Amino acid sequence: MIVLFGYKNIRFLDTTLRDGEQTPGVSLTPVQKLKIAEELSAIGVNVIEAGSAVASEGEREAIKLISDAGLNAEICTYARAKTEDIDLAVKCGVDSVHLVVPVSDLHITKKLGKTREEVYVMAMESVAYAKERGLTVELSGEDSSRADQEYLARLFRDGVAHGADRLCFCDTVGLLTPERTAEVIPPLCFAPLSIHCHNDLGLALSNTIAALRSGATCAHTTINGMGERAGNVPFEEVVMVLEKLYGYDTGIDTTKIYALSTLVSQLTKIPLAANKPIVGGMAFTHESGIHAHGLMRDPTTYEPMSPETVGRKRRIVLGKHSGSASVQSALKELGYEPGEKHLAEIVARVKKVGDMGMKVTDADVMAIADSVMLLECKPVISLKQFTVVSGSNAIPTASATMVVNGTKVTGAATGTGPVDATVKVLQQSVAQFGDITLEEYHVDAINGGTDALVDVTVKLRKDGRVLTSRGARTDIIEASVEAVIAGMNRLLRDENENRRSNTD
Amino acid sequence: MIVLFGYKNIRFLDTTLRDGEQTPGVSLTPVQKLKIAEELSAIGVNVIEAGSAVASEGEREAIKLISDAGLNAEICTYARAKTEDIDLAVKCGVDSVHLVVPVSDLHITKKLGKTREEVYVMAMESVAYAKERGLTVELSGEDSSRADQEYLARLFRDGVAHGADRLCFCDTVGLLTPERTAEVIPPLCFAPLSIHCHNDLGLALSNTIAALRSGATCAHTTINGMGERAGNVPFEEVVMVLEKLYGYDTGIDTTKIYALSTLVSQLTKIPLAANKPIVGGMAFTHESGIHAHGLMRDPTTYEPMSPETVGRKRRIVLGKHSGSASVQSALKELGYEPGEKHLAEIVARVKKVGDMGMKVTDADVMAIADSVMLLECKPVISLKQFTVVSGSNAIPTASATMVVNGTKVTGAATGTGPVDATVKVLQQSVAQFGDITLEEYHVDAINGGTDALVDVTVKLRKDGRVLTSRGARTDIIEASVEAVIAGMNRLLRDENENRRSNTD
Repeated sequence: MIVLFGYKNIRFLDTTLRDGEQTPGVSLTPVQKLKIAEELSAIGVNVIEAGSAVASEGEREAIKLISDAGLNAEICTYARAKTEDIDLAVKCGVDSVHLVVPVSDLHITKKLGKTREEVYVMAMESVAYAKERGLTVELSGEDSSRADQEYLARLFRDGVAHGADRLCFCDTVGLLTPERTAEVIPPLCFAPLSIHCHNDLGLALSNTIAALRSGATCAHTTINGMGERAGNVPFEEVVMVLEKLYGYDTGIDTTKIYALSTLVSQLTKIPLAANKPIVGGMAFTHESGIHAHGLMRDPTTYEPMSPETVGRKRRIVLGKHSGSASVQSALKELGYEPGEKHLAEIVARVKKVGDMGMKVTDADVMAIADSVMLLECKPVISLKQFTVVSGSNAIPTASATMVVNGTKVTGAATGTGPVDATVKVLQQSVAQFGDITLEEYHVDAINGGTDALVDVTVKLRKDGRVLTSRGARTDIIEASVEAVIAGMNRLLRDENENRRSNTD
Repeated sequence: MIVLFGYKNIRFLDTTLRDGEQTPGVSLTPVQKLKIAEELSAIGVNVIEAGSAVASEGEREAIKLISDAGLNAEICTYARAKTEDIDLAVKCGVDSVHLVVPVSDLHITKKLGKTREEVYVMAMESVAYAKERGLTVELSGEDSSRADQEYLARLFRDGVAHGADRLCFCDTVGLLTPERTAEVIPPLCFAPLSIHCHNDLGLALSNTIAALRSGATCAHTTINGMGERAGNVPFEEVVMVLEKLYGYDTGIDTTKIYALSTLVSQLTKIPLAANKPIVGGMAFTHESGIHAHGLMRDPTTYEPMSPETVGRKRRIVLGKHSGSASVQSALKELGYEPGEKHLAEIVARVKKVGDMGMKVTDADVMAIADSVMLLECKPVISLKQFTVVSGSNAIPTASATMVVNGTKVTGAATGTGPVDATVKVLQQSVAQFGDITLEEYHVDAINGGTDALVDVTVKLRKDGRVLTSRGARTDIIEASVEAVIAGMNRLLRDENENRRSNTD
């Protein structure tokens, strides 16, 4: 463990609500932005860049709402070097402005059609204008990494003389390397300096860390690494690298990381990559036999940190790489205790399902175990038929006939759509035999055509027992029915039977 | 541009088909694995780790298929230090083994229940055993980053003496930093050394680069950074960082990167994060007004590289951050040339749709433009009704009645499911008025319950014109109908009208 940051106080400016929200297709309502801002403040972020006041009316409403919320964090807005932008910032009631001026010749000439001197004058006037209006000013150099570094240093130094409280080095297109960062940052650390990294080539995290090691004192981050193109540096990665690899106490409440990440992902409708570090669905999930085996002996063998550190739990799933240790552990949770020979056969069959390219759900494992252990596996529910009608002038309506524990039941239900109606009629029909609730209904994104395979996974609960099952058909209704019936059968059967164990 | 790697030949070992395929829930068939291997070889990867021969029968079939395919790349399999694994490798006909032995005390004692000496002996015997069978051997230290580095060096040095051709340093749980990497790699470079980095804390890329700068000669990578937990270092990022930031010619055909990434994502059913560097959906997509404006003047202002470098195209989308430059450009493509006042009003309304948290599709922009420019916008198609029936004993069947250009049409169609039947009947009904094909049908992943909002986006084509439109309802069929009808209306209307331009 290397302690490199102990001597200074690293701050976090979060720009999820500005740079993050600029992700094409993302748009948050003011109330949603406020909710995220509250959680950002609660986790310990120092500054919240709440938006760009000039962008739209809705954006200003959001910034004002956040400014008025009395959060611990300083509230900031993005502004260009224009009086119009600064006036709008003042109107929104923010504490500070992230005042951005282009500093590379490329941006100065090609984008703005101006000269270095013109931009310099705009910057100085804007800093002074904002300071006169009582704002804290962070003067930021857009495209700093491609700027003439002498010009940048002069602009920053004179900006401070004109009242700028802080500075920011923006790697706008993600072109820094850690080595280059270590060269360009130290000469600019005559005032508190932020580092603002984009991830176009995947180096935003190491460039941010390199800048903090070289004298920068504040990291601009976004939750989940949201942002235009490849996004900004992810907050959760900067925090955990500092905490875990450099032994630096960030003051962030890391146990709230996962909940905050999930909130942002849900509200922005931007799903996380399964393999996103720290917060992705798979970050603490294990399948392979070797790994799961090691984990059961000591979790640190295949985990960089305890999942609880970031508010999560470990998950073991089954598939073609599963070894007997992980299958045995899953079976035990599902109430099966097979002998050694049976276990080996169950493992072999689980691998075979995996070999066919399929996910292996609880219901799959139970079906395999029943078959191998020669357990009575007559289904409790037998679906005789279902029919569903919907249309522009029809309330979606479904009927179903099933035999449950020998009793024939026919029911009908309406719903918000044909899938909803069908699942409701199944639930109603079994209600007299047990109260089964649908905890989660998930459909993988459908790509290709209207005849593509639809993959439905459901999580059902009965009396505190939770079970996953799946259906895969080209018809979303059939796939949903398949998943629900498979799960219900398992949950209802259980109560009629004793714990399933035998020796082989 | 820093040239640091010019003096040596960096190699790539791709482990998408082994470490990548160990991603929980992923399972590729032998034919799919072969397809990926062919493309890996074609793009210029040096070694393909095709799988783990001991994992399953299907896995061995895949490895054999790839070994027999006559690819340029060396074909390798993962093996533990066991004769069983090496025998299976030989049976599969591979060129080489990635022979992995645990080297940290944690793995040696907690996972294997052995001593350092026992592991040392296993390693030497296995290297010799594999060499005797004619295999190239890459001796790999699992959890090298937490190992006693003196023990590791002794094991590696004696491994080479026993015949190992190459060595590999595995950062199994992603705990390296670039600084630590620069310390541990140089003492081990007495034979060709590979670096194998996991991304648990997000530093796999910079650690891999640091290792290559410190003397390692081969990077273990996976396409899209697939792999257990947070995955392995992504091939595309290592290649583009070397090419773009360090000026090193990797010999990889970078223009094939996007196609390979897409192939792997489709076959593994692991969607990419929108903001994945290089290959994510948003990596070359722009919305914000400032950015799009700069881009139109010079793409390098907001792009780290030309999208064509990696086989992609730039995309500008509209939303609440759009400025007039990007809206004008989109309108022009859609056949609208509004005057200045009209353009300002269209931009304002586009931002408003964005403010409500919505994606803005082509059909939305056209509707806004029609309304602002006071253009005749009587829809060509008016849907009077649709009805759909499906069920366990029914072939999904849909009927629809619509008025197209004043003519009433009623049709019926069957499909693989109710959505498919409904979209088919809509297409059939308009066929006599124009041949409209459905190019893409996409549904965002559905989460929550069966009454969750379903977001459908379609891409329709007519005579070379392509147009996107969307529908969002709690009923997947209604959402699909909404999207298709909106798009069809736009495509059919066009041919009746002249180019829409006016001055205001």
